[in-house]
Amino acid sequence: METMLIDIVLPEGANVIAGQSHFIKTVEDLYEVFTTGVPGIKFGVAFCEASGERLIRWDGNDSDLTGAAIEAAKAVGAGHFFIAFIREAFPINVLAAIKACPEVCRIFCATANPIKMVVGEEGDRRAVLGVMDGEVPLGVEGEEHKKARKDFLRKINYKVG
Amino acid sequence: METMLIDIVLPEGANVIAGQSHFIKTVEDLYEVFTTGVPGIKFGVAFCEASGERLIRWDGNDSDLTGAAIEAAKAVGAGHFFIAFIREAFPINVLAAIKACPEVCRIFCATANPIKMVVGEEGDRRAVLGVMDGEVPLGVEGEEHKKARKDFLRKINYKVG
Amino acid sequence: METMLIDIVLPEGANVIAGQSHFIKTVEDLYEVFTTGVPGIKFGVAFCEASGERLIRWDGNDSDLTGAAIEAAKAVGAGHFFIAFIREAFPINVLAAIKACPEVCRIFCATANPIKMVVGEEGDRRAVLGVMDGEVPLGVEGEEHKKARKDFLRKINYKVG
Amino acid sequence: METMLIDIVLPEGANVIAGQSHFIKTVEDLYEVFTTGVPGIKFGVAFCEASGERLIRWDGNDSDLTGAAIEAAKAVGAGHFFIAFIREAFPINVLAAIKACPEVCRIFCATANPIKMVVGEEGDRRAVLGVMDGEVPLGVEGEEHKKARKDFLRKINYKVG
Amino acid sequence: METMLIDIVLPEGANVIAGQSHFIKTVEDLYEVFTTGVPGIKFGVAFCEASGERLIRWDGNDSDLTGAAIEAAKAVGAGHFFIAFIREAFPINVLAAIKACPEVCRIFCATANPIKMVVGEEGDRRAVLGVMDGEVPLGVEGEEHKKARKDFLRKINYKVG
Amino acid sequence: METMLIDIVLPEGANVIAGQSHFIKTVEDLYEVFTTGVPGIKFGVAFCEASGERLIRWDGNDSDLTGAAIEAAKAVGAGHFFIAFIREAFPINVLAAIKACPEVCRIFCATANPIKMVVGEEGDRRAVLGVMDGEVPLGVEGEEHKKARKDFLRKINYKVG
Repeated sequence: METMLIDIVLPEGANVIAGQSHFIKTVEDLYEVFTTGVPGIKFGVAFCEASGERLIRWDGNDSDLTGAAIEAAKAVGAGHFFIAFIREAFPINVLAAIKACPEVCRIFCATANPIKMVVGEEGDRRAVLGVMDGEVPLGVEGEEHKKARKDFLRKINYKVG
Repeated sequence: METMLIDIVLPEGANVIAGQSHFIKTVEDLYEVFTTGVPGIKFGVAFCEASGERLIRWDGNDSDLTGAAIEAAKAVGAGHFFIAFIREAFPINVLAAIKACPEVCRIFCATANPIKMVVGEEGDRRAVLGVMDGEVPLGVEGEEHKKARKDFLRKINYKVG
Repeated sequence: METMLIDIVLPEGANVIAGQSHFIKTVEDLYEVFTTGVPGIKFGVAFCEASGERLIRWDGNDSDLTGAAIEAAKAVGAGHFFIAFIREAFPINVLAAIKACPEVCRIFCATANPIKMVVGEEGDRRAVLGVMDGEVPLGVEGEEHKKARKDFLRKINYKVG
Repeated sequence: METMLIDIVLPEGANVIAGQSHFIKTVEDLYEVFTTGVPGIKFGVAFCEASGERLIRWDGNDSDLTGAAIEAAKAVGAGHFFIAFIREAFPINVLAAIKACPEVCRIFCATANPIKMVVGEEGDRRAVLGVMDGEVPLGVEGEEHKKARKDFLRKINYKVG
Repeated sequence: METMLIDIVLPEGANVIAGQSHFIKTVEDLYEVFTTGVPGIKFGVAFCEASGERLIRWDGNDSDLTGAAIEAAKAVGAGHFFIAFIREAFPINVLAAIKACPEVCRIFCATANPIKMVVGEEGDRRAVLGVMDGEVPLGVEGEEHKKARKDFLRKINYKVG
Repeated sequence: METMLIDIVLPEGANVIAGQSHFIKTVEDLYEVFTTGVPGIKFGVAFCEASGERLIRWDGNDSDLTGAAIEAAKAVGAGHFFIAFIREAFPINVLAAIKACPEVCRIFCATANPIKMVVGEEGDRRAVLGVMDGEVPLGVEGEEHKKARKDFLRKINYKVG
């Protein structure tokens, strides 16, 4: 097995959610998760069909994001892998619904950072082994960082002050 | 660490669901997920106990599927790994309940494809690193493929026309 | 990419839960999951912030467990990785709530065993590739082991006799 | 407000699930819950649209069950009320998915008993107040009844012996 | 017990979600459900504390909606009842998260219709008995209505065409 | 239909959770929810079987709580009604798991207050119509009450300061 690092550069202002699913119904179901989750969300989603016609199945409501999802799925190429880019919304708005989608197996990452997918390949077969999401920590938060973290979450109204 | 690819050949007509769990209660809980999920389901499930007696714990209602699950668990051998084969039912029927099972950590894959498990080994210890589920995509769907995909999902009544 | 095995030795009597999340809100949300999940739980949780200040964010109500979580997060160092140690409670008490936490992506493991995290590194970037949770199985359970397993689960009242 | 008791007689061999939902999307979503939940399930579902055209919206794959659902919805008539009859499956197979359906508010009952819906009416408006599901208890189980209950659940394989 | 019908008139353009919860933490948790669920959502939520100081507890980010929620909670007055009005979002965006909130018991309704709450009162105690959500149906949908319903759901992109 | 108010007086220090379920499996499943949810929890649960032998089915690990649950189920007597009393734990610890239990339909209330169940009866049939949980509000919280509420939730560590 050969191991590869595949760069996924996010479209400007987008977040990425990547995971493993079960079959082609995923494309429609994630479409519905996005449109019923957040009014005005922009998204593109692509899924690697792993048998039969073996096509990258895709949908979305924004051509940039859809195109980027197709390119990312192509680059990763692992069977039953899916990837979505979203704008005008954040992973926290939709991640619970994606995890609850009946044919989704697992989520590899949800992030605004550029990512490197760690992919193993042997012949015509590929597996996602992991995701490098951002960079290693530089230190441990002290009291002032802790306070700044809490203040930030309250400033954006994600937590109550 | 040595990296191995372990072939899991599915019993005829079966689907496979593989994951990581927390302890031996998983065997009983997945038994109940299967029997209460789909009337008439056939299944076998096996789990790698990772300490104490370190036995492959198993159950099921079909000797072929149970035997195959035990063999697959033996071949993978990673601590707290579980694998189930099902017939007369599909992963989409039971996957949400498996994800909701309180001691299940994550699902590696759910598929009708033969799979290769990517396993790392060092001494007596093994980890699942990934799953090769089917093969890499051959292209990107066009409008006619998209229509065929939607038609198929409506023909099997999984989506409303 | 270099692959490393990182030993995580659990504090005496603790269980560990490790996973991948989305952003710093995780620390507060897991704090609340723990305190509202089990009266009297002791815990420490740490999370690797992957961009911006790139600090290990942490919280807890027990200095041993909190310190151990910080050290473990430091040792693993993968972006958006989190790890929690708990005492006076078990993963089965809180795992469903952690999986349901809206920014949690996936759970790598939940265990009382010492674990080895398989981590890939390239430059400043790291990815969790897998977890060695306990050791490989030594055999397959027979009828007497099956009976002992069921008896044990009923003795601890996790299943009804 | 006038209070009425409305008899719902179940089609032979059917179970009923009744609840309150949010809008007409419920019909399609419950259709998908049923067809993706249990292979071979037979069902009919009807929903009382509460504004606009105010029609009983319905779907299904069995004309008896669909017809019965429409009649029951008509008889109850409360806004945003839904009712489904199922055969070749049991509520336990699909109830979790119905509760998770994003526009379902609550489930009034799931049963194989004939039910009486308690409905309040004022002018053109109706509310479900409660459900009489079967009859009042005749006594308290003793040890022999408890044993018989457990044996029954194990005989049908819903619990592990 | 006296039975009352209490009119809840929705603020212009708002939707209402009403339910039963467990204690005062509900106010903060629903605040977080709303703000982390949909960027730009406007909401007000109020909850009837049922012991101790017995105050209507409330929060929100829009004074009209917050004021309306307080008035509605006052009018209903049942212990542990909560009500929320939302704008710039729809119940389908947030209902799953509200149902999953650990102290929420049940949802009475989620609607854009004006509602009448059916409330029983005895002395200082009140119970919600039901909700009149919109009006009774006028007929049963035929093929053309069914087509129009599906077309509408696809036009708003809630279902895939 | 006759309407009755049935007083449920909680055992000293207990909380109550009451709901509607689907069949006798509920007793075992709630037993497991409690024992696997909180180490050391004390509980009693009773369920009104609605057909067949029509017995109050029950279990628990504390004779006071179990006896009280049986008496309360007897007093309410509605088909498929269940009630549980818990000590050494709080509803917030277990309510999510109860709602997720595959045969539970809905939760009427979860509270530490004495409750009055509103029950409708006709012949041998009863329905729960509502719950009076505590008493009506006396006012609306002001800034100082809001601060006290938040302080309290932080003092008990349910929310992060």
